[in-house]
Amino acid sequence: MRFGDDILAQADALAAFTEAPPGITRAYLTPQHRRAGDLLLALMREAGMRADYDALGNVVGRYDAARAGAPVLMSGSHMDSVRNAGRYDGLFGILTAIACVRDLHGRGVRLPYALEVVAFGDEEGVRFGVTLIGSKAMAGSFDPAWLDTKDADGISLRQALVAFGADPDGWRALDRRGKDVVAYVESHIEQGPVLLNEGLPVGVVTAIAGVSRMRVAVTGLAGHAGTVPMGSRRDALAAAAEMTLAVERVAVDAPAGEAVVATVGTMDVEPGAINVIAQDVVFSVDVRSATDAARRRAVEAIRARCAAIAARRRVGVAADVYYELAAAACDAALQDALAASVARRGVPVRRLPSGAGHDAMVFPPVCPIAMLFVRCGAGGISHHPDETMTAADAEIATEVLLDFLQTWTPR
Amino acid sequence: MRFGDDILAQADALAAFTEAPPGITRAYLTPQHRRAGDLLLALMREAGMRADYDALGNVVGRYDAARAGAPVLMSGSHMDSVRNAGRYDGLFGILTAIACVRDLHGRGVRLPYALEVVAFGDEEGVRFGVTLIGSKAMAGSFDPAWLDTKDADGISLRQALVAFGADPDGWRALDRRGKDVVAYVESHIEQGPVLLNEGLPVGVVTAIAGVSRMRVAVTGLAGHAGTVPMGSRRDALAAAAEMTLAVERVAVDAPAGEAVVATVGTMDVEPGAINVIAQDVVFSVDVRSATDAARRRAVEAIRARCAAIAARRRVGVAADVYYELAAAACDAALQDALAASVARRGVPVRRLPSGAGHDAMVFPPVCPIAMLFVRCGAGGISHHPDETMTAADAEIATEVLLDFLQTWTPR
Repeated sequence: MRFGDDILAQADALAAFTEAPPGITRAYLTPQHRRAGDLLLALMREAGMRADYDALGNVVGRYDAARAGAPVLMSGSHMDSVRNAGRYDGLFGILTAIACVRDLHGRGVRLPYALEVVAFGDEEGVRFGVTLIGSKAMAGSFDPAWLDTKDADGISLRQALVAFGADPDGWRALDRRGKDVVAYVESHIEQGPVLLNEGLPVGVVTAIAGVSRMRVAVTGLAGHAGTVPMGSRRDALAAAAEMTLAVERVAVDAPAGEAVVATVGTMDVEPGAINVIAQDVVFSVDVRSATDAARRRAVEAIRARCAAIAARRRVGVAADVYYELAAAACDAALQDALAASVARRGVPVRRLPSGAGHDAMVFPPVCPIAMLFVRCGAGGISHHPDETMTAADAEIATEVLLDFLQTWTPR
Repeated sequence: MRFGDDILAQADALAAFTEAPPGITRAYLTPQHRRAGDLLLALMREAGMRADYDALGNVVGRYDAARAGAPVLMSGSHMDSVRNAGRYDGLFGILTAIACVRDLHGRGVRLPYALEVVAFGDEEGVRFGVTLIGSKAMAGSFDPAWLDTKDADGISLRQALVAFGADPDGWRALDRRGKDVVAYVESHIEQGPVLLNEGLPVGVVTAIAGVSRMRVAVTGLAGHAGTVPMGSRRDALAAAAEMTLAVERVAVDAPAGEAVVATVGTMDVEPGAINVIAQDVVFSVDVRSATDAARRRAVEAIRARCAAIAARRRVGVAADVYYELAAAACDAALQDALAASVARRGVPVRRLPSGAGHDAMVFPPVCPIAMLFVRCGAGGISHHPDETMTAADAEIATEVLLDFLQTWTPR
């Protein structure tokens, strides 16, 4: 096996850089970030790249083009993790790109573009509550107000960057807009069961879903669970339960071709006593779709159904959208080029949207984007220690990326 | 006004004995229990009773009968409270009985039975998680294993009794079974909206509902909220929401004459993240009915519906009944006597079950029981600082109890 075993072994080595073994938790600008970054730096250099940390702690490697002045193709993903994460989320996209460079370099092959491999320091946003810090800086959407954001210990992003030896004021120079970057291509574990269920090792991403997040607060009236007749109740939890089913129903009923997923993931009940009718319930709604219009229609349908349920049950409801990120379409030509590489590897071409967000989604202001998904084992579980990928799938995915890199030419 | 204003002022004074002002929290064998007990002791003695603490910290006053050797009628309620309680729950039943004795004593009236007024030290079970400790001791159902039960600070009931100056081993002597107690009559704020909605100051209780408490654990499969298609989900929270509505529906659909109330009051969601499909949800179910058979049928219906929902949604479910208390019927003759007193006061007689548990419910092994309910203001709210009672209603309720005491004769 040319790539798969090595990549999985490297992922195992990186998994040891965690703040809480045996689980994997690796946040931005921590000692674990440093150790992972140093290992990736070493792998990049050993593969034939010039590589270093940038001003925000991202690790960037460069494999020069056949000729000076050629444009740049970027690839990579993030090296940070959620709490108690899997070991392939993010890191696979970095390791597969490094493996391609090592192979090209070993064979003395140079491409008609410079290949930059990036390991973003923050995508998940675990430490500062701001996601995609590395990729947003490169896409020109870094907000300097983030520098004053503090972590749970009261340390600001600015302080953490200084302590890391990075440069809080260097973010401007990272902006790649207008710098002749011609494509951003990211490989990533699917984090879902679609390829697994269809028996496919890889798939071509059509778009990265946009997301709306809502906070729904239901206000009923507390009462003794034994003394208030059913017909006199204004039970906030029963109302929230009905709303939760409405959220699910809105997603299930979305028309084919405008698929939506919607999830109630948290529910807080006050006073939360066995013998007291709930007075206040707050729950979260996460709505995603590759189609922004479908997502907005779903949000409005959820709002309307919650309002109708609240009116019928004589409870109050406030449903606020507090976070929104638009969908990012993958470039049609890049998709086709990736699909051709998949087909040449003898794998049926499956195109699918990405329900999860990825670094790629913020790059459209810089360049066209594309993504290759790799099968996620164990039922498609991710953001969890049970996340798995086989060496055989890592091999195929790397062969596909390498084929793409060797056949695609900037227009 | 003969009674109402005084009783409300006394309730205000007792409300000051709290561990966390301005809310009312008065747990068993605490300094607040001591101060409330001392005030009630003083009120009892001032009203013409011999009174003292008993071996478990209950305050017991005795107003002797017209003749020696007469039987005993007991009245009273509990002086402890839930956390952040109202001021009439429990205490009204003690204060109204003391007011009756004061009036009888002032007029030099003795009854054909000795009247004992009891202020139970524990009914709510806040400190040791064991409810009705005082009344169960008198009813012969005290379990000595409770003496080893510990509070949140690791202090056992035995240690707390000793520190209070009570006698942990004195519980046997409190058993009133076979001691010529001929009735237990308790007045209590309704803690619900029935009398309020019907414009009635008092009502006669027909039975105290039995209760079953269930813990329902739903086991789904965690997944990324963006990547798992709706049809592939095993969402524990969506399943729990559907079960919550089934619990409500079982109660609403109970046949007339076999009324059931059922409440889901707590719901804990794991992992409880906005972007993660819930894996584990645990919720509580509280089922009550004045008819034990109706309650048991409701529990079985809830179990069956939860199992069907779980099967359809491919999640696991375990629904365990961990607590059960049988309904206690009020004595027909005592009900009729109380109803006659209500009617003589010019109030339409409303008979209603008690959805809440009360000290009276454990007394059937000792003697027949009866209860008088008093209108609960503010929508019927109780176990809450907003619990209210008017002086006019306290007046009527005390007049009714006094009339009952002066007209009822032991057979």
